[in-house]
Amino acid sequence: MTPVGLPSGTRIVERCDALARLSEAPGALTRVYLSKEQRAVDDLVLAWMQEAGMSAHLDAIGNVVGRYEGATPAAPCLMLGSHLDTVRDAGRFDGMLGVVSAIECVHMLNAGGLRLPHAIEVLGFADEEGVRFGATLLGSRAVAGTFDSKVLDLADANGIVLRDALERFGLDPDRIGAAARPAKDVLAYAELHIEQGPVLEAAGLPVGVVTAIIGANRLTVDLAGMAGHAGTVPMNLRRDALAAAAECVLALEARCTREPDLVGTVGRLDVAPGAINVIPGHVRFTIDIRAPGDEARDGATADVVTAIMSICATRNVKVDIRPMHVGKTTRCAPWLQQQIADAVAAEALTVHRLPSGAGHDGMAMVDLADVGMLFVRCKGGISHNPLESITVEDAAVSASVFLRFIENFKPRPMPK
Amino acid sequence: MTPVGLPSGTRIVERCDALARLSEAPGALTRVYLSKEQRAVDDLVLAWMQEAGMSAHLDAIGNVVGRYEGATPAAPCLMLGSHLDTVRDAGRFDGMLGVVSAIECVHMLNAGGLRLPHAIEVLGFADEEGVRFGATLLGSRAVAGTFDSKVLDLADANGIVLRDALERFGLDPDRIGAAARPAKDVLAYAELHIEQGPVLEAAGLPVGVVTAIIGANRLTVDLAGMAGHAGTVPMNLRRDALAAAAECVLALEARCTREPDLVGTVGRLDVAPGAINVIPGHVRFTIDIRAPGDEARDGATADVVTAIMSICATRNVKVDIRPMHVGKTTRCAPWLQQQIADAVAAEALTVHRLPSGAGHDGMAMVDLADVGMLFVRCKGGISHNPLESITVEDAAVSASVFLRFIENFKPRPMPK
Repeated sequence: MTPVGLPSGTRIVERCDALARLSEAPGALTRVYLSKEQRAVDDLVLAWMQEAGMSAHLDAIGNVVGRYEGATPAAPCLMLGSHLDTVRDAGRFDGMLGVVSAIECVHMLNAGGLRLPHAIEVLGFADEEGVRFGATLLGSRAVAGTFDSKVLDLADANGIVLRDALERFGLDPDRIGAAARPAKDVLAYAELHIEQGPVLEAAGLPVGVVTAIIGANRLTVDLAGMAGHAGTVPMNLRRDALAAAAECVLALEARCTREPDLVGTVGRLDVAPGAINVIPGHVRFTIDIRAPGDEARDGATADVVTAIMSICATRNVKVDIRPMHVGKTTRCAPWLQQQIADAVAAEALTVHRLPSGAGHDGMAMVDLADVGMLFVRCKGGISHNPLESITVEDAAVSASVFLRFIENFKPRPMPK
Repeated sequence: MTPVGLPSGTRIVERCDALARLSEAPGALTRVYLSKEQRAVDDLVLAWMQEAGMSAHLDAIGNVVGRYEGATPAAPCLMLGSHLDTVRDAGRFDGMLGVVSAIECVHMLNAGGLRLPHAIEVLGFADEEGVRFGATLLGSRAVAGTFDSKVLDLADANGIVLRDALERFGLDPDRIGAAARPAKDVLAYAELHIEQGPVLEAAGLPVGVVTAIIGANRLTVDLAGMAGHAGTVPMNLRRDALAAAAECVLALEARCTREPDLVGTVGRLDVAPGAINVIPGHVRFTIDIRAPGDEARDGATADVVTAIMSICATRNVKVDIRPMHVGKTTRCAPWLQQQIADAVAAEALTVHRLPSGAGHDGMAMVDLADVGMLFVRCKGGISHNPLESITVEDAAVSASVFLRFIENFKPRPMPK
């Protein structure tokens, strides 16, 4: 293998900074699907791709697609990518680091004059977070051929329907199918992403090999007790919806603490009427339960539902539990895990395997190709937050590992 | 004593209905201090007072004041009253019933041509609930001479300062002192009010004699844990502010369940950032603890504070506990309790004495005169709620008891 130069951690971080300046709000990073900020980011990324020796264009759903040909033209590709949209008040690395690092790797191949037996494609997905229309993974679903045209009728907070937003952006909502790629053209999908959790930092390691993208079950729970005056209703006559909810929160926590790799969160909880001197009559809260194993997750979910029913029966509080989402776990392909692990070891780093608790484009891409992921340590495990940060050194090291993986990539003998 | 006619329960309830129609929202009763709805209610109440043979005016803080002279002019008065403002989405009897019933009693005296040795005054306090400016009992404090001019700088949710709101209403914020009454002119303060609790209904009695207005300690608690991604932070590395708050809610409940007559409520609880997939980083909640005995209340408050500190220390969550209000219990004067009890017994009803768990204008009026209260049964103990209700029969019976008390009222031999 021809040795190529080392990726620049400085350039990677500077490019993430440049993308972060393209935001709908001046002080905080927010960039949603089909916004004018997306257009500005696309222009920048297209230019970087071309500088790195790729042909580049926007596809039918608005993803940025760059292609670096292999030794023979029109060869199937190793597809790399991540997303370019953000949550509200986001960090600057979630998604963008993977796109920028992949471009940096191609840049080094190109600078070294290296052509591989396979092509490389780098995708900057236009929508992963789903902030604007409430449906996630729109960019990668379109590429995987699983885009559901029903979502074209979804409206954003201003009442603009996805179909119209696509047209205003210059895309044809009836031609989204053109973004879908045939499986024979894609050897694998690999993504570099910040961990968004504290595991690598705690282990003192810059990178980790992802074993699976963990599925999540989501529920909403509505409790109806009886509102009353905080001074006049004796404790034994109360049907306090918040006290019931408090027991439910702790029951979820206790159940999820019992098994490793299982996590459960009540992230929203709203109390009505919400006055200092009124016993809460209604509480609504959300539950998010994740585990690598579908059985473990579904078992914990069932146990938590049983516990909530029992708590509410004891307290004479009405309960309505609604499942919002059942997400299966996406396994990272063992052969890709191994090639990524080999690249980590070749950089003289300890191989640490860990599941991803957060969702990623691989959850959609797995319908098109086998999926692998490389995680990068981030400070304090903080993400979806302006405090999200990585070091320049980790940007360089993780890109070096990713480049080594790309250079040494061998397709799976039997295509999926 | 000249017999006078019986008060009309129908008229009392109809007048409460008429007042309830004067609301800032069409479907729900909300009437706050210095609103245009207050002005409309004042006009109605002034007219009813004049119909009942009283001279009537608005005082310097906006209270409606009606005076029915005694047998000799300018005699000291028995002061009756309650409040005309409401909480949000209120019931129609909390406060208003006391004003309307007192007017009804004076109406019967006047119709019967009866003058008592003392004057009667009826006050409709302009602010008891404190909904608009967050400071309660503004009307009765002004009458008692304990209005704190610092509250003139308090702003409502729209940023309008109390001082300006008074001027817009046509009142002079620098002349509020004129509402204060000299103690020598007031023989006692007596109030008829719905119980706002379930005790009289459970006892099968239409009225009860109030022994004390129970004091409340109020605190706000701020918890700061660490926000994080719901999928990526293992349970044992979490500093979940909501799970900590849930333990605090249950600790308060457990402590207050241990002693009779002690109650504790978390009525507000706000979670940030409040997203389904984010571990809560901050929670702010309120605590309201009430007990008839100041020692029992302060002891429970101290225990709850200790429990919260311990929960947060264990969970590595920062906590900031601020006392907002420490309210001592207001005793109803035994000589007034006795005269009210005599009136109950004279109506062939069982005398049932009970404390008030809710706050009332008597808490301020006690600085001016001895205080007595008559409670009226309400359905299901429900108050601060559109479902608040009483029967026409109970309105009639309670007004009859109140009228008998007024007719037979004897001043305390030694003035306070």
